Amino acid sequence: MDKFRVTRLVYYVKVYEMEQGSVIYIGRKPVMAYCLAVMTALKAEDSEVTLMARGRAISKAVDVAEVVRNQFVADLMVKDISIGTERLENEDGSPRNISNISIQLAKD
Amino acid sequence: MDKFRVTRLVYYVKVYEMEQGSVIYIGRKPVMAYCLAVMTALKAEDSEVTLMARGRAISKAVDVAEVVRNQFVADLMVKDISIGTERLENEDGSPRNISNISIQLAKD
Repeated sequence: MDKFRVTRLVYYVKVYEMEQGSVIYIGRKPVMAYCLAVMTALKAEDSEVTLMARGRAISKAVDVAEVVRNQFVADLMVKDISIGTERLENEDGSPRNISNISIQLAKD
Repeated sequence: MDKFRVTRLVYYVKVYEMEQGSVIYIGRKPVMAYCLAVMTALKAEDSEVTLMARGRAISKAVDVAEVVRNQFVADLMVKDISIGTERLENEDGSPRNISNISIQLAKD
């Protein structure tokens, strides 16, 4: 019988401090990891948080915004959403277009 | 040797006519099928087209908007983007929250 068991995985989500609030890049971690990062960033400075995502992570960014808004921070507003396209390179050097989204969240 | 080969699949995308322009629900068909539907809807009445998607199709909705805007209709504008949550039921009757997005496109 092992005395020490992993009961919960803790993910570290990087939060970038920008001039207009914090920026969180949405990737492969679970939705709740990003929700926690958003809430921590909001608590720290009471300003804006921008979620950035591209490709398939776009759906997850919307999930994060909605979960935080509906379940944790009632007065959180979606201030702005914008979409765009980035040009990346495949491993063989060929160009590839990938969509992105940025969701700006702010407390009321 | 077969004389008749399928060289291209044609997908039928339903376009719903609403009071404020057309509505297209993004699902499992390829991105290009929806792009074609958007362009047809824009040509038909020169008004607005709203893309609706939920769950994982959210990323695809952003792709459709970006592909049409960048590759086909240069004067197409993203007029509004809104996100929300819907409450669905699983097969066993338990509730499940799912995020959605609506992207409103309009010609300049």
